[in-house]
Amino acid sequence: MIRFNNDYNRGAHPAILEALARTNTDSYGGYGQDAWCERAAAAICAELGGVDVDIHFLVGGTQVNYTVIAAALRPYESVVSADTAHIQVHETGAIENSGHKIETVPNIDGKLTASQVRTLAEAYRTSTIPEHITEPKLVFLSFPSEYGTIYSLAELKALRAVCDEYGLYLYVDGARMAYGLGAADSDVTLVDLAALTDAFTIGGTKCGALFGEALVLKNPALRRHFRSYMKQNGALLAKGWLLGLQFATLFEDGRYFALGRRADALAMRLKAACEAKGLPLYMPNSTNQQFVVLTESQRDALAGDFIFEGEGTLPDGREIVRFCTSWASTDDELDALCRAIAAL
Amino acid sequence: MIRFNNDYNRGAHPAILEALARTNTDSYGGYGQDAWCERAAAAICAELGGVDVDIHFLVGGTQVNYTVIAAALRPYESVVSADTAHIQVHETGAIENSGHKIETVPNIDGKLTASQVRTLAEAYRTSTIPEHITEPKLVFLSFPSEYGTIYSLAELKALRAVCDEYGLYLYVDGARMAYGLGAADSDVTLVDLAALTDAFTIGGTKCGALFGEALVLKNPALRRHFRSYMKQNGALLAKGWLLGLQFATLFEDGRYFALGRRADALAMRLKAACEAKGLPLYMPNSTNQQFVVLTESQRDALAGDFIFEGEGTLPDGREIVRFCTSWASTDDELDALCRAIAAL
Amino acid sequence: MIRFNNDYNRGAHPAILEALARTNTDSYGGYGQDAWCERAAAAICAELGGVDVDIHFLVGGTQVNYTVIAAALRPYESVVSADTAHIQVHETGAIENSGHKIETVPNIDGKLTASQVRTLAEAYRTSTIPEHITEPKLVFLSFPSEYGTIYSLAELKALRAVCDEYGLYLYVDGARMAYGLGAADSDVTLVDLAALTDAFTIGGTKCGALFGEALVLKNPALRRHFRSYMKQNGALLAKGWLLGLQFATLFEDGRYFALGRRADALAMRLKAACEAKGLPLYMPNSTNQQFVVLTESQRDALAGDFIFEGEGTLPDGREIVRFCTSWASTDDELDALCRAIAAL
Amino acid sequence: MIRFNNDYNRGAHPAILEALARTNTDSYGGYGQDAWCERAAAAICAELGGVDVDIHFLVGGTQVNYTVIAAALRPYESVVSADTAHIQVHETGAIENSGHKIETVPNIDGKLTASQVRTLAEAYRTSTIPEHITEPKLVFLSFPSEYGTIYSLAELKALRAVCDEYGLYLYVDGARMAYGLGAADSDVTLVDLAALTDAFTIGGTKCGALFGEALVLKNPALRRHFRSYMKQNGALLAKGWLLGLQFATLFEDGRYFALGRRADALAMRLKAACEAKGLPLYMPNSTNQQFVVLTESQRDALAGDFIFEGEGTLPDGREIVRFCTSWASTDDELDALCRAIAAL
Repeated sequence: MIRFNNDYNRGAHPAILEALARTNTDSYGGYGQDAWCERAAAAICAELGGVDVDIHFLVGGTQVNYTVIAAALRPYESVVSADTAHIQVHETGAIENSGHKIETVPNIDGKLTASQVRTLAEAYRTSTIPEHITEPKLVFLSFPSEYGTIYSLAELKALRAVCDEYGLYLYVDGARMAYGLGAADSDVTLVDLAALTDAFTIGGTKCGALFGEALVLKNPALRRHFRSYMKQNGALLAKGWLLGLQFATLFEDGRYFALGRRADALAMRLKAACEAKGLPLYMPNSTNQQFVVLTESQRDALAGDFIFEGEGTLPDGREIVRFCTSWASTDDELDALCRAIAAL
Repeated sequence: MIRFNNDYNRGAHPAILEALARTNTDSYGGYGQDAWCERAAAAICAELGGVDVDIHFLVGGTQVNYTVIAAALRPYESVVSADTAHIQVHETGAIENSGHKIETVPNIDGKLTASQVRTLAEAYRTSTIPEHITEPKLVFLSFPSEYGTIYSLAELKALRAVCDEYGLYLYVDGARMAYGLGAADSDVTLVDLAALTDAFTIGGTKCGALFGEALVLKNPALRRHFRSYMKQNGALLAKGWLLGLQFATLFEDGRYFALGRRADALAMRLKAACEAKGLPLYMPNSTNQQFVVLTESQRDALAGDFIFEGEGTLPDGREIVRFCTSWASTDDELDALCRAIAAL
Repeated sequence: MIRFNNDYNRGAHPAILEALARTNTDSYGGYGQDAWCERAAAAICAELGGVDVDIHFLVGGTQVNYTVIAAALRPYESVVSADTAHIQVHETGAIENSGHKIETVPNIDGKLTASQVRTLAEAYRTSTIPEHITEPKLVFLSFPSEYGTIYSLAELKALRAVCDEYGLYLYVDGARMAYGLGAADSDVTLVDLAALTDAFTIGGTKCGALFGEALVLKNPALRRHFRSYMKQNGALLAKGWLLGLQFATLFEDGRYFALGRRADALAMRLKAACEAKGLPLYMPNSTNQQFVVLTESQRDALAGDFIFEGEGTLPDGREIVRFCTSWASTDDELDALCRAIAAL
Repeated sequence: MIRFNNDYNRGAHPAILEALARTNTDSYGGYGQDAWCERAAAAICAELGGVDVDIHFLVGGTQVNYTVIAAALRPYESVVSADTAHIQVHETGAIENSGHKIETVPNIDGKLTASQVRTLAEAYRTSTIPEHITEPKLVFLSFPSEYGTIYSLAELKALRAVCDEYGLYLYVDGARMAYGLGAADSDVTLVDLAALTDAFTIGGTKCGALFGEALVLKNPALRRHFRSYMKQNGALLAKGWLLGLQFATLFEDGRYFALGRRADALAMRLKAACEAKGLPLYMPNSTNQQFVVLTESQRDALAGDFIFEGEGTLPDGREIVRFCTSWASTDDELDALCRAIAAL
C-alpha cells in the first residue's frame, strides 16, 4: 500500500535526521532560547525582504492557530474565515474554546475574498447596536487553502487593503506553505507574505520536518508577550532547539522551496493523469493536494494499492477523494498511481 | 412618539409594582431561597403537566442562555442553531466566550428543522475523525423565533425525536414565550414544552415583568449544581425574591397567558392594516413582532410619530422594519399606528 | 425573627419604589441608553471631583467584578488580592472561569498592602523566566473589606503609587461603599477613589437599591468597548433605566451617604453593646458588619430571636458570627439586639 | 561550561535516534493511530499490574496537565495542589486560562498531605453556601515533587483514601517519573501509581526522550472523548508515531527505569559532596534535583564552569540553587562538579 492520504505520513528530510544525530550530545538552553533557533530565525528572516519580525517555533498547526488568535483578540472580537477554513471545520472548536467566535463567509474555490471581509467589517462599523455583536478583527486564511487553491498576489493585496481600512489583522496559516510557494502559477513569495500580513506561519510538519511550524509575527501588537501566550497554551517546547534545528536545515540552500516545487510537480503529473482519464477534479489547483471525483467502483479499484482520503459524497453518489503528494513522495509511487488511474 | 421598537420599553404590569410596594419592608433569605421563589416555582409547575423539574429565576436572557449552555456542554461539544438565532447574532459571542462553538444551519422561516439537526448529528456519528470536530450536543431554538414565527407541535416532536436518537439536549429560549403561546394558530402549550424539551425559559422581561427569566430544567444532567453555574456566571441575584415575586404575580390567574394573547391580537390588527394597504410582510407570523417591508418614504412617514426598528435592507433598497406590540401596548396606540399605515 | 444576617434582605428605599411607580407607564430606550441612566451618571459624576469617567450600571457584584477583570486583563495577566477577597473565596471561581489567575497575599486585617503588591510586581519584573509566570496587572480590593475594615487614604495612596510604578490597575469593589464612606473614622471620599483608582464600584444592592452596582471607569484602557463586555457577560440589562432610576434616587440630596452613615452608627451601637458585655470582636471595624466571637450557648441564645451568619470556628471552639446593619435596619431592631446581648 | 541547570538540555538516548533513522522512510497513520503508539502503550501497560487503562502520548508537560484538567473538571470544580506545584507557579496560569481555579495548600517538603485535602473537601461538603465556592475535585501532585522529594506509598494510599471518600480525582504529574521511581529510598512503583491514581503521566522529555509525555488514564470518566480534548488543546501530534517510537524504545528492556536510577545515583554523589563540604541542602531528597544553599562567592566560584539555576534567595542573602543530573549526565561531569564543590 502506498500512502497518498496526507503529507505527514513519513519522518523528515534526511538532512534533519543527520543534524539531530550530529548534535545529540550537545547541550542547549531551553524553551527556544538557543543558537539553533537564532540561526533558523535568521535564515527565515533572510527570505522576508528585510521587514522587522519576531519568529517563534511551535510544534503544531492547531496550536499555533489558537495561540496567535488568543494573543491577537480581545474577548468581544471575532475571526473572519471561509466556511471551509481549518479552524472552522477540523480543529474541534479550538478557537471557540479560547473564547472567540468565528464569523464564516461562503468559500469561493476554498478561499474568502476582500469583498466578503469588507461586508462584515462595514456591517460592524455601521451597526447601531455594536455592543450586541462581535467585532471582526482578524482575517484567517490558509495558503494554500484547505482545497489546495492559492491566493494570488492581487487577492492578498486586496485583503490587506480592506484590513487596513477597517483595522483588522491578516493572518495566514501556512501549514502547506512550501506547496503554495512551489506552485508553478503562484505569484506570491515570502517577501509578499511578510509585507502583506500581520502574521503568518511556515509549515514544517507537512513540508519536510518531523514536526514544527515557524511563526512570523510582524505587527507589534501581536509580538508583545507572545512567549507568555506560548507557555500558557502548552506551545513552548522544552527542547526548543529541536525546532530551530529543523527549520535551519529546511532553509539551508533553498531546500524548503525545492521540496515544495518537487511535490507540486508530482501532483501535476497526477492531475494530468486524471484529466487524461476524464476524472473530474473538485476545485482544480496547482498544489500538492488533488481532489478527484470517483465513482464507487473507481474508488474501490484504487483502494487496493493506495491509501487516500474520502472528502465527502456528491449528490449523485460519486465521491470526492484527496490524493496528497509530499516532499517524501517518490517518482515510483507517482508512476504507480498514474498507471492505476490510466487503467481504471 | 409611540414606541413599537421593542417589547421591553415600559416597566411592569401594575400588579407587580403593587406586590413590590406591599412587601418592601419584609425581609427574606438571599439568592433565590425564599417563599416567593417557591411560590412562583409552584405556580409555574402547575402549568407543566406534572413533570419533575427544577425552576430557577435569572435576570436576563443572554445570561440564562450562556449559563445553561455552560452547564450542559463539555468543551468539545457544540450548539446547533439556526443562523438567525439570538445566541448567534445578538449576544456578542457570549456562547463562544464560554468556550463553545455554535454550528449553524440556514433558517427556514426563522426556524431550524429536525432534518437539519439529523444531518449534523449523523455527520458526527459517522465521522472517521470525530476527534477533529465538535460533537453537536444541544439544539437551541427560540419560541417564538427571532422573526416571530412559531414551531408547531409536530415540529417540536420531530426535533425531540432526533435529539433522542442522537443524544442531544433540546433547549428552548422562551424570551417571548407569552407571545408564542398566545398566538391564535399555536398548538403548543407549556405542557408540551415541558414534555418535549430538556430545558426551556419563560420570559418575563418582555412579557410583563420589570426583568427576569424563569428557567425550567427537566433533564437531571442539567440540574446538578446549577446554582453553582448561576453564581459563577453572575446570575444569582442577591435579592432573588424580586424575581420570584414577579413570576408568582404573572402566573396568578392566568395573567401571563392573557397578556400574551392580547399583545398578539393587537399585532394581528397591525398585520391586517399592512395587508389592507398592500405592505409586504417579511416572514409573516401570528405573534407580537411584525416585520414589514417599507419604501424609504413610507418609513420616513411613519417615523414621524412612531419608533420602530430597522432590520436590514432588501436588494431593491426597501427596508425591513420591525413593529413590536407588547403587554403594555394600548388600543389607542394601535389605532394610531393602523391609521398612519392606512394613510401612507 | 429579626434579620441581621446580611444587608440585602429587604427591598429598597421608599423613594425608589415611588419613582418606579411614578414612571411605570413611561417608555424608554433599552440597554442603559436612557434619560435616567444619564441623570444617575451625572449625579454620581458630581461627587467625583471633576475627573473624566464613564459610568455604567450593572445588576450584581460578581458580575461587575468579572466583567471588569475580563475587560482589563490579557490572558497571561493576573489579579492580585488579599486571600480573603470576595473574588477569591465567594464567587465560585468566576474570575478563573473568565481565564484569569488570582495571586493572593495574606490579608492583614482583611486588607492587602502596597508592600505586598510591590513584592509580587517586583518578582515579575525581575524574573528571568517571565513567560512561565503570570503578570500581576490588576489590584483588587474591597472598600470596606470583606471584614468591614477600611483602607485609609494613606493606604490607598500607597497602593496607587505602587500601581503606577509597576503599571498595574487599581480596582475597588465598593459593594458596601455607603458603609465605607459613612464610617466615622474614614478619611476617604468618592473624590479620592476617583482620583486614586482606575475603576471602582458604588454598590446599590446592599445600600438601599433593589439591585444594582454603579461602575466608575476612569482609565481609558478600561473604557473602550466596555458595553461589548457587558453584553457578552450578560450584564447589559434590557430595561437599563431601572438601574439609572435607582441610582439617581440614591444620589439625590445626599441620600446614599446618609443611609451609610446611619447604618454605621447603628453598627457602632451594636459594637458598644458587645464591648460592654465583653464579647470579643474579630477584626474590629467601624462599618456595618460586626464580627463577634460567641460561645455556642451565647450563639444559641441569640439565635432564638435573631438571624445572623456563621463565619467559621476558632480553634477553641468559639464561633465567629456576623451581624450586619443596613439602610433598612430600625432603631427598634437595634434596641432588641443590644438588649439581648446585654442579657447573655 | 557543563550544564546542570535542568534535565532537558540534551537530545535523546541514542537508541531513540537510531529508531528514528531506521524508520524515517516508513509511512504511518496520523495522530497517534499507528503501530508504534500501540507498541509503546503495550510496553507501558505491561508495567502497570494489569489495570485497564488508556494511554495517550502528548508532546509537553504543561499541555498534558491542562488538557487532563480540562477533561476532568466542570467549570465550578477546582484543583487542589501544593502552593509549590508546577501548575500553580510555572505554567503561566494555564489551568486558570482553561477556566479552573487552583486551591493551594502550604507545601510540606514540596508535597501536600491527605489531611490538607480532607480539610478542603470537608469544608465544601459541609458548606451552607456551596454554590458560592468551587468544589475541590482533582488533587494534583508531582512525583517527584518540584523540589525533588517523593511521596511514600503510605502517603499516596492516604491521598487515595481521602479522594475516594470525597469523590476527588487523583492525578500525578510524572514529568520526572524515572527519577522518582529510581530513588534508592522510594517504595512506589508504576503498579502502585496505576492502582492508586485516576491518571498519571510518565515523562519522556526530561527522562531520555527528545520530547513527549505518556499519559495513563484509568478512570473511565477521564477516558471518554479524550482525543477530542487533545485535538482541541493542540495536543494531538500529526506524526504521533514519533511519540510512540520514543516510548517504545524507552520501555524496552527496562531502559527507562535504568536511566532514572543512574541519574539519581549521580545526584547522590553530588549530595554527598555537598554534605562533605558542609553546604546546606534545601529540602533534602534522593532524586535528580539537588537544591543547595550557597553564599554569593560560592555561587560565583561554581558559575565559572557550571550552569545551574537560581531558585530564590534566603533572608540572610544566601541563594538556593538547583543542580540537576539527568539520563545524559556523565561520570566525568559529576567528577568535575564534585571536585569544584570540594574546592570551595
